[in-house]
Amino acid sequence: MKSTVNEFRAYRAEMNERILKSGFSDFNKFFALDNKAYVNGALNAKTKELMGLAVSMALRCNDCILYHVDRAIQEDATMQELYETFNVALIVGGSIVIPHLRYAVEKMDEIFSTKETQERENKNEI
Amino acid sequence: MKSTVNEFRAYRAEMNERILKSGFSDFNKFFALDNKAYVNGALNAKTKELMGLAVSMALRCNDCILYHVDRAIQEDATMQELYETFNVALIVGGSIVIPHLRYAVEKMDEIFSTKETQERENKNEI
Amino acid sequence: MKSTVNEFRAYRAEMNERILKSGFSDFNKFFALDNKAYVNGALNAKTKELMGLAVSMALRCNDCILYHVDRAIQEDATMQELYETFNVALIVGGSIVIPHLRYAVEKMDEIFSTKETQERENKNEI
Amino acid sequence: MKSTVNEFRAYRAEMNERILKSGFSDFNKFFALDNKAYVNGALNAKTKELMGLAVSMALRCNDCILYHVDRAIQEDATMQELYETFNVALIVGGSIVIPHLRYAVEKMDEIFSTKETQERENKNEI
Amino acid sequence: MKSTVNEFRAYRAEMNERILKSGFSDFNKFFALDNKAYVNGALNAKTKELMGLAVSMALRCNDCILYHVDRAIQEDATMQELYETFNVALIVGGSIVIPHLRYAVEKMDEIFSTKETQERENKNEI
Amino acid sequence: MKSTVNEFRAYRAEMNERILKSGFSDFNKFFALDNKAYVNGALNAKTKELMGLAVSMALRCNDCILYHVDRAIQEDATMQELYETFNVALIVGGSIVIPHLRYAVEKMDEIFSTKETQERENKNEI
Repeated sequence: MKSTVNEFRAYRAEMNERILKSGFSDFNKFFALDNKAYVNGALNAKTKELMGLAVSMALRCNDCILYHVDRAIQEDATMQELYETFNVALIVGGSIVIPHLRYAVEKMDEIFSTKETQERENKNEI
Repeated sequence: MKSTVNEFRAYRAEMNERILKSGFSDFNKFFALDNKAYVNGALNAKTKELMGLAVSMALRCNDCILYHVDRAIQEDATMQELYETFNVALIVGGSIVIPHLRYAVEKMDEIFSTKETQERENKNEI
Repeated sequence: MKSTVNEFRAYRAEMNERILKSGFSDFNKFFALDNKAYVNGALNAKTKELMGLAVSMALRCNDCILYHVDRAIQEDATMQELYETFNVALIVGGSIVIPHLRYAVEKMDEIFSTKETQERENKNEI
Repeated sequence: MKSTVNEFRAYRAEMNERILKSGFSDFNKFFALDNKAYVNGALNAKTKELMGLAVSMALRCNDCILYHVDRAIQEDATMQELYETFNVALIVGGSIVIPHLRYAVEKMDEIFSTKETQERENKNEI
Repeated sequence: MKSTVNEFRAYRAEMNERILKSGFSDFNKFFALDNKAYVNGALNAKTKELMGLAVSMALRCNDCILYHVDRAIQEDATMQELYETFNVALIVGGSIVIPHLRYAVEKMDEIFSTKETQERENKNEI
Repeated sequence: MKSTVNEFRAYRAEMNERILKSGFSDFNKFFALDNKAYVNGALNAKTKELMGLAVSMALRCNDCILYHVDRAIQEDATMQELYETFNVALIVGGSIVIPHLRYAVEKMDEIFSTKETQERENKNEI
């Protein structure tokens, strides 16, 4: 539960590769559809990642929450946008969502903090 | 299941009034928080209604689906935006969402068709 | 959805009989365990029926809600006790529970109203 | 809720056509993957339909239950096999599944009874 | 998963403080409503905590289970009352609840055992 | 989360014994019904274990997944049969099932690999 964001990313990548190389090709087709659901369209990628995040919190799936928080921040979601998304999930899903809100906030803080450190380092390199 | 959108709106309004006048004031506080979760903020109302819709489909609640489809269209969501939202819910929630996708499409068609008729009538009145 | 309490009771009784006479005896064993879970013990039957009601609302099962509202009122649960139970379910389960709260309140009103009429008639008969 | 099996089949077919002709092609891709999940493979179609039925009962989706009961019977599932499948779903999913067990038994009886009538008529035609 | 009760309490307190000091005040309003749902009323606090526990088990949320077991024991719930509550959740929610029953029993034992030790020490201090 | 299959088996056995010796006999009755649901009947044990696995994945319960993967392999389920079962669960339950698919594949690989090692050792002993 306390695995860092990087450990999660590594485990996820390793197991996804295992699954996508299993030879059972319908896994690959579903994974492709899954990725495609979040690309820019009438709604942009950031909106869809936040939507996926709200659904993941309401369905109470920590790995899915971490993935969509990570992706939403890559698409430049702000902390305020994330709070509003967390709040939709909390109100729709109720107090049963609170443990996942704690997890989401913890991981959001970790990702924003790493991002800030990297941006500071990038500036110093210049 | 086959109740029209108007019948649903009437039943919903009647029962909500019954609940909000029950004298149990924490119901009122929760309903107020619920409404507030979808107002314009860092994310706009349309985005939040579509988010609420995706969550409702993944949690498979027809009354919630109808409510958010109705509200999203009032906030000028287009059919393409609704399709993309339906698709996020379908991919996250799986084939168990399909009966609710049928319901969502049926109600979306009914609401868009009523809206069009009204807009045509409004033009003719001028 | 709009079937009266009596129609539900009749359908439930008919189908339960069909199931319990199917010859598949593990159905009977499960139904017996189910009934036994709500009898007086360290916790009394009313408390357990209200507990079953809260769980049914959070799991969003209308038939289960109607059954436990009916049983709780038979065990002399008051309207205030039912409101507090509804509220636990609403807070734990979130706004997705609201359609089921509307249903629970509607059926509670119907059952209390029938009960009152019967009690008045019983008095008049004396 | 009380729509006959034929009415359900007609509504399902009509709305699926509406969805598959919407022009949003990822719906078509998902529906194709969904159909493919139940074809004969290392496990045969009957086993997979019964598996889909057990999942549908545990996830408490009546339309999905009706669909898989219907398909399983087309694949020659017997009443005893259906009972054993119902029982896995009941034990895994608990008493919250009971309303869906009632629905599943009602629809199974309706489908077997129609099938018998048709087979008798077919014999008489010879 | 194997974190002791004290570690959970510390993590929960730390993250709740982080959330309640985020400046997003609707989180605070929801948390206040959540706390209020379990105070003495027509139903007493112990009954409501056991109710919250049954719902948490049926919704399969370990952190929520630990919290309500802890609170119910503070409100003087007995082991027998906890068993009857576990049983309602098990029967309503089915075998899928069993891993959470194991967790609930493990944590209940840990909390009762700590409580006993403390009570013995308190006596010795006199 | 990273506990090996053997650690899980030991914890499960220890806690089940604790529960079955609690003196609350309805736990024992439910556990007996649960075991009985998977024995050979009109459907064989392997089919029922795979069915239980599909339900466990769709309901997203890792401990249940591990248990049924383990049991299905004991009943001689092949990797291809497991893939087809995983796929039914993935399609019915959607992308929210993916973290549990990763877990299922990881544990399946661990169990098959242990089994192979043991079979090789058994041959060498001859």
